[in-house]
Amino acid sequence: MDVSRLEKRLAEAGQSHLLQFLEQLCPEEQADLANELESMDFKEINCFFKNAMDTSGQSKKEKVDARMEPVPREILGSVTRDREFLKDWEEEGLRCVSQNKVAVLLLAGGQGTRLGVPYPKGMYDVGLPSHKTLFQIQAERILKLEQLAEQRHMSTCCIPWYIMTSGRTMDSTKEFFSKHKYFGLKEENVIFFQQGMLPAMDYNGKIILEGKGKVAMAPDGNGGLYRSLGANKIVEDMERRGIACIHVYCVDNILVKVADPVFIGFCVHKRADCGAKVVEKTNPTEAVGVVCKVDGRYQVVEYSEITLATAEKRSSDGRLMFNAGNVANHFFSLPFLKDIVNTHEPQLQHHVAQKKIPYVDTRGQLIKPDKPNGIKMEKFVFDIFQFAKMFVVYEVLREDEFSPLKNADSQDGKDNPTTARHALMSLHHRWILNAGGHFIDENGTRVPAIPRHGPAGTLTPDGSQNLKDGTDLPIKCEISPLVSYGGEGLEKLVNGKEFHPALVIDVNGIHEHVKNGL
Amino acid sequence: MDVSRLEKRLAEAGQSHLLQFLEQLCPEEQADLANELESMDFKEINCFFKNAMDTSGQSKKEKVDARMEPVPREILGSVTRDREFLKDWEEEGLRCVSQNKVAVLLLAGGQGTRLGVPYPKGMYDVGLPSHKTLFQIQAERILKLEQLAEQRHMSTCCIPWYIMTSGRTMDSTKEFFSKHKYFGLKEENVIFFQQGMLPAMDYNGKIILEGKGKVAMAPDGNGGLYRSLGANKIVEDMERRGIACIHVYCVDNILVKVADPVFIGFCVHKRADCGAKVVEKTNPTEAVGVVCKVDGRYQVVEYSEITLATAEKRSSDGRLMFNAGNVANHFFSLPFLKDIVNTHEPQLQHHVAQKKIPYVDTRGQLIKPDKPNGIKMEKFVFDIFQFAKMFVVYEVLREDEFSPLKNADSQDGKDNPTTARHALMSLHHRWILNAGGHFIDENGTRVPAIPRHGPAGTLTPDGSQNLKDGTDLPIKCEISPLVSYGGEGLEKLVNGKEFHPALVIDVNGIHEHVKNGL
Repeated sequence: MDVSRLEKRLAEAGQSHLLQFLEQLCPEEQADLANELESMDFKEINCFFKNAMDTSGQSKKEKVDARMEPVPREILGSVTRDREFLKDWEEEGLRCVSQNKVAVLLLAGGQGTRLGVPYPKGMYDVGLPSHKTLFQIQAERILKLEQLAEQRHMSTCCIPWYIMTSGRTMDSTKEFFSKHKYFGLKEENVIFFQQGMLPAMDYNGKIILEGKGKVAMAPDGNGGLYRSLGANKIVEDMERRGIACIHVYCVDNILVKVADPVFIGFCVHKRADCGAKVVEKTNPTEAVGVVCKVDGRYQVVEYSEITLATAEKRSSDGRLMFNAGNVANHFFSLPFLKDIVNTHEPQLQHHVAQKKIPYVDTRGQLIKPDKPNGIKMEKFVFDIFQFAKMFVVYEVLREDEFSPLKNADSQDGKDNPTTARHALMSLHHRWILNAGGHFIDENGTRVPAIPRHGPAGTLTPDGSQNLKDGTDLPIKCEISPLVSYGGEGLEKLVNGKEFHPALVIDVNGIHEHVKNGL
Repeated sequence: MDVSRLEKRLAEAGQSHLLQFLEQLCPEEQADLANELESMDFKEINCFFKNAMDTSGQSKKEKVDARMEPVPREILGSVTRDREFLKDWEEEGLRCVSQNKVAVLLLAGGQGTRLGVPYPKGMYDVGLPSHKTLFQIQAERILKLEQLAEQRHMSTCCIPWYIMTSGRTMDSTKEFFSKHKYFGLKEENVIFFQQGMLPAMDYNGKIILEGKGKVAMAPDGNGGLYRSLGANKIVEDMERRGIACIHVYCVDNILVKVADPVFIGFCVHKRADCGAKVVEKTNPTEAVGVVCKVDGRYQVVEYSEITLATAEKRSSDGRLMFNAGNVANHFFSLPFLKDIVNTHEPQLQHHVAQKKIPYVDTRGQLIKPDKPNGIKMEKFVFDIFQFAKMFVVYEVLREDEFSPLKNADSQDGKDNPTTARHALMSLHHRWILNAGGHFIDENGTRVPAIPRHGPAGTLTPDGSQNLKDGTDLPIKCEISPLVSYGGEGLEKLVNGKEFHPALVIDVNGIHEHVKNGL
């Protein structure tokens, strides 16, 4: 081990403290630390730090509020306001899929920390009757969409699935897919690649040691995607396959319409190089980033960056002026993505996230700070909107398409396994009703479309429930993505029929009264 | 005790079974039962049953869906779409208050059963820093509104407060008000009266015994108001006081703007005899009744009555067509209310609520059924909309005005003490920001208007929170209604100042860092 060369590099970069405990480490630990440090480009890291801190200070000075403009109607497509075009857009999207032009790109670097599990989020089972994981649900939606495109255009096709993991989740993710035989997809069409990591730094730009021989490392944000795409030659793989459009999304949304043909068709129809799917933000203090124009370029302004006065601004129709809530579902044309990876990626600044980062002090003691003591540097996947030449926004319904899984059930009742499970079952309940099916309770009485609070068929102790807010408990109902991608094809199965919940419809048929631990 | 006369009356009414255990009762129980039965008008009750069952069967036959029309724009006032008129309407409302023309009528018959407490809901403390109860918050809003009207018009005034309790809640409610010296209101301006009760009946019209000597009784629904107003000569009291407008509301909404001058002013300006305050329903399956027109008359259609297809209908602007969500806040002119009480009340049909009603079987055994075995008969407060000659609807923002308290915290995270407390503190947080105040965290850093999830100033383990749905935990902040009714008058107290949460502003001044069990 050539420590002196490493020492010199560290000294030049002002990071000599990283070796301060070297002599206290056993030879193996010494080698590990040296290897880790050898692989790091300190000049680049110091430069990231300087730029990130500069940008962060700067943005505080010039408030973004005054420069924000809402999304203009002409670049907006809406599932509720453009109904007459939806069929055409879907047709266009299905054609692209059938021509093998569509790929999906999954951001799955997140660990289940807040969810309270030690494995990747995609492996989580929210407790559906089928006990399918998020990965399986998404895989089956891809399979079904391939079938739909094939049936429509009489040609076999494939939607390759690129999955970005982090260093921490790569092995378990790959193993999980392999164990489950890629959920019916072909192995060669599921491509894993890994997101980069960056060290955490204190406010003086010193890299933080979380152990005497261990650097505090963190993934570089979901915008690390672009650097990682370059490092792993993913764009080249896409070109080789003839891909033209990419749908990027986050793993945690149980309702995600993977490769949504309507969204893709809309973007293609508009000749967009970049598009964002959004849901309407209706509460000014909802903690969601909004897509808008700033200084003439599109971006996502995070909720923590805007003042209440701006968040509360309304258009003359009474809607919030900045209501295009980002749901991390994006469309990229391949030329655009290639341009980003090859040209613009280095221009992207890291964002600064102040954190409480455990560290070893000069005596080698592990300290867990109770105030933020340093930063992690992150890029965001939407940082590239600014480079789009033709940017579009597509507004969909929250209840149909967005229910992220973030927290454990024990937390505050938001974005947890229960809300995710209910969101999916409520959607499938609506599919059944809209296809002409009905649910009946234990007395044989038809359950109303909007059931009372509580499991179907049970009545509550008091009758004064007409003021309930929010979504009630849904009928227990699950439809396999292999049976229906978005509610289509159910009439022949359910029209005019009555079902007892729980109802499960899968490729083996219709199953009622499944007893399970819901 | 003249049992034979009672026996005869019961026999004529087909209710003889009510005395089947008479001989097994001790003399005191016998007397109690006889007294209870003596006071009941069986002819009337049987007639209620027959009409309620007929109506209930009928409404199932002709679906209401086909006959529903949305609220037309010309009778709609909107806090977001009619901003230019709000000041005028408020002025009008304050003038009415200052002229002693406004009364409020509180529906407070509900027990805290679902909330898990054995006392009336209005006595509940949701855990605000001040630990004020719902009754106190509402009382202080009335006091403050009187002051505002007095200051504006240089004349003393009074808003009498009519409180309808049920038989079960009357004593504890009165005692509570007396103990707290009517929260600063004059005793003679707080008028309690009691809602009627009706027996529960089985599907054959037989009154149910819940004990050998005890009839199963239940309040007759919040629409029992009108009968009770008549029985207690409340309209006469209002006339004597010169009341012209009445604001009716339910006790459980912590954000309720009692006697809201803007709402009252809007209704008066429109020369309405009846008005309903609504919030926009944005999710088709939200369990809320909607105000709409049916066969040309206004009514609330309950969510359980409409099909999904109707609930999902949208206007060309993308909004739900039936989106006027009822929040049980109504305006009545006194002539209208008088007309209802004197003329229309008897025409109101009872609604049927199927329930699981514990009963004693023929052997005297108490049975707790696991299926509905009978009905309770209820009227609804909004049943009278149909009689309005000039009906109007006033749309307000949910986050500003509607957060009902229904469930215990242990339930599913909706409409519970935590959501109520958060809704109030979030509103007061926004008042502070809009008055030019700021919050700072423990490091002296200004907290963004939309704080991250978790108590102010703490950072979460991961930075990827830009997709959060719903309202985050608010800054701990409470402003006494005696200081501000609706956010007014705070600039002089907070403009340009920085505060540490928890912040409490009351008549004694500004208090920071209150340690409490929030």
